[in-house]
Amino acid sequence: MLNLQLFYFLFLFSLLTFCTANFSVPHVSVNTERLIEDLKILGQFSDGDYPGITRLLYSKEDKAARRYLVALFEKSGLSVSWDPVGNIFARWEGSDPRAPAVASGSHFDTLLNAGLYDGTLGVLGALEAVRSLKEVGFEPKRSIDIIAFTSEEVSRFGIGCLGSRYLVGSLSIEELVKLKDSDGVDFESARKSCGYTERLEDSKISEDFYSAFVELHIEQYHILEDEGIPIGLVTDIAAPALYTIEWKGPGGHAGSVPSNERQDPFLAASEFALSLEQLVLRDPKNSRATIGRVEVYPGSAGAIPRSARLSLDIRDINEESRTRVKDLSLEKAAAIARKRKVTMETSHNYSYPPARMDQRIIQVMEDSCRAYNFRYLKLVSRPFHDSLFMATKFPTGMIFIPCNGGKSHVPDEYASPDDISHGVEVLAETLARLSYQ
Amino acid sequence: MLNLQLFYFLFLFSLLTFCTANFSVPHVSVNTERLIEDLKILGQFSDGDYPGITRLLYSKEDKAARRYLVALFEKSGLSVSWDPVGNIFARWEGSDPRAPAVASGSHFDTLLNAGLYDGTLGVLGALEAVRSLKEVGFEPKRSIDIIAFTSEEVSRFGIGCLGSRYLVGSLSIEELVKLKDSDGVDFESARKSCGYTERLEDSKISEDFYSAFVELHIEQYHILEDEGIPIGLVTDIAAPALYTIEWKGPGGHAGSVPSNERQDPFLAASEFALSLEQLVLRDPKNSRATIGRVEVYPGSAGAIPRSARLSLDIRDINEESRTRVKDLSLEKAAAIARKRKVTMETSHNYSYPPARMDQRIIQVMEDSCRAYNFRYLKLVSRPFHDSLFMATKFPTGMIFIPCNGGKSHVPDEYASPDDISHGVEVLAETLARLSYQ
Repeated sequence: MLNLQLFYFLFLFSLLTFCTANFSVPHVSVNTERLIEDLKILGQFSDGDYPGITRLLYSKEDKAARRYLVALFEKSGLSVSWDPVGNIFARWEGSDPRAPAVASGSHFDTLLNAGLYDGTLGVLGALEAVRSLKEVGFEPKRSIDIIAFTSEEVSRFGIGCLGSRYLVGSLSIEELVKLKDSDGVDFESARKSCGYTERLEDSKISEDFYSAFVELHIEQYHILEDEGIPIGLVTDIAAPALYTIEWKGPGGHAGSVPSNERQDPFLAASEFALSLEQLVLRDPKNSRATIGRVEVYPGSAGAIPRSARLSLDIRDINEESRTRVKDLSLEKAAAIARKRKVTMETSHNYSYPPARMDQRIIQVMEDSCRAYNFRYLKLVSRPFHDSLFMATKFPTGMIFIPCNGGKSHVPDEYASPDDISHGVEVLAETLARLSYQ
Repeated sequence: MLNLQLFYFLFLFSLLTFCTANFSVPHVSVNTERLIEDLKILGQFSDGDYPGITRLLYSKEDKAARRYLVALFEKSGLSVSWDPVGNIFARWEGSDPRAPAVASGSHFDTLLNAGLYDGTLGVLGALEAVRSLKEVGFEPKRSIDIIAFTSEEVSRFGIGCLGSRYLVGSLSIEELVKLKDSDGVDFESARKSCGYTERLEDSKISEDFYSAFVELHIEQYHILEDEGIPIGLVTDIAAPALYTIEWKGPGGHAGSVPSNERQDPFLAASEFALSLEQLVLRDPKNSRATIGRVEVYPGSAGAIPRSARLSLDIRDINEESRTRVKDLSLEKAAAIARKRKVTMETSHNYSYPPARMDQRIIQVMEDSCRAYNFRYLKLVSRPFHDSLFMATKFPTGMIFIPCNGGKSHVPDEYASPDDISHGVEVLAETLARLSYQ
């Protein structure tokens, strides 16, 4: 009796192992031309000169882009829904619609005068993966969702990953409604003006809503390009932190006040920028510190500045070393303020822990690369992504493809049709496999 | 016969000398309250939070201020006219209306978030001088013009003394029509939208149109305040020069590019700012160099800057030493660009020679101070004024009064009612005397 039970158990186990190990998805045939055409059309919804793309959250360009995406999703037979902040979901229903779904996606907003691929490739690439899977007759078991995330970039409201943070519950409604853009427009007005009028409270998503999330993205650096490897599989996402520092002085007339009597906050900011550079140069491989936004007030050629305000972006895969750079640089900023007799204020915009990608998903992505005979490299993502937050709630993975010269956030950001095609193939294979896991 | 002729000549000469030496103007009684009330009302025409004043050329606030000034001038019985750029002239006709007139005035535009007195005191102070001379029954021989100059500040079109330069012919129509503001609006559209539709060619003023020009202004520094002296008489105006420097680099993602691979134009700008400070600190009494406008592009916290543009304002009473500071600093800017592998472009906005005030007018101003028993100090103006250009065509003088802490171009710019009153008394006496010279 016992032997029969054991035999029966071993038989079932073998069958399961066999099925999993030999699960096979027909190779897809990615329509790269169609995908690049879609990317270029999406790039037209821009407040700037193409190919420099500027599409800020809830702007009229963003609104038009949303209409375009919804139309594309519906054309592919996906059912579209959205949440109160405008995260857009396009579902390909599986044969087991009640099982936690598999999701893939990215964002479609941009920084100012940025490129065509950052974020958008992950949205339209997921759509192309779905289209090409449909075209080879694949039928998913778990449903597959494409998510077009609201505002991953910090451009309008000063915080990154707004949509994904809202989705996983790491951004409270209190924090959201306090946000204002640089023109003083508050988040609620902006959201509603874009047609999202549902109550922010009316969106709850459980931990088992998705069984997996996979994001396709350009690498935004040139490791893959240098190595000649088409696919990067992300193991970790470095931890970002953002601070704002402002120095203030009495100002005065540019002609009147002698050089040695000035308390010029812009000179304090300049001295800080150079000392920060020295600080991160001690560990150039890991520490990244960037002053990207600089505002000098009143900004008249004939007036000594009365204030200089900087953004301070610090990233490190090691949270402790990021904190060390932050502490040392803020100490230095204060010392400069004392020396130059200007006041200083700092504010802490955000700091998030690093994220670790899911081992099971990495394994599936490796298998998918092998299925297509693609070389791949495991690497760390130093830019952050919606995956940083999706990983706090769902098993998450990221697929990188090379981009020209590693450039991103610039108008000449570029990924080749071949690299795009390979990325979508690996994504399609990964989603298909995950749909049956 | 010869003796009789000599006697006759000597008699006439003595009579003339006697008349000139003993020319006396009744002391005026300045209505300081009325003047300060006018200044405060003018301050309401502002695109900003009072007392911070922002009134840019041809803006709707400027248009409203113009209507207010014209109404005030007409209420005082002056006949008002204007030229194609909107310099406003209010004439008190003298008993010899065909003789070259005496003029007084200043500007009424502001930098961003600036003060109540800079410029406006010279316009409304001249009006108060005229009103108080009328009230004591004085009747001018030469006509007295009040000039409210269009745009002395660089705020909108990037050049200073636009109105006075146009008036004296030091700004060509070709240069004028090429001007664009930071929103790309060209000068001609802006001028016409403010109601000035006459052809720019239709304004010619001869060298003998004015026999004298006198400008009342706050000192914009604290020499008079430190010395406790109510009146400053300007001997020279320091020569201003303005340049724009822009560094450009490839940008990149704040998370991706390692510190030692960056070509960050803002770091180049910072290094330049500190080296410029060191350069002018060698001669802090005379050299003044100011970086007042700083624009960093694209200005996103998550993007390494792709460009950093600075305004470089240099002033010196000595033109050669100003040129030396310019040459050394631009050389340094280029060296920094080479070292940091960023490109650099410079443009030359303007540079003007210094101006010398008219000795005869200084003498009349000294006599006027003595008539009121005011102590006075002769000094150099390091800020520039419309007088810098009026002096190129007409005998010119400037009267300074103290301002609190020497502050100007800031919301808490302040001149006391007593100091204002003394300034207007000296101006009234000076205009009255010049009207008979």
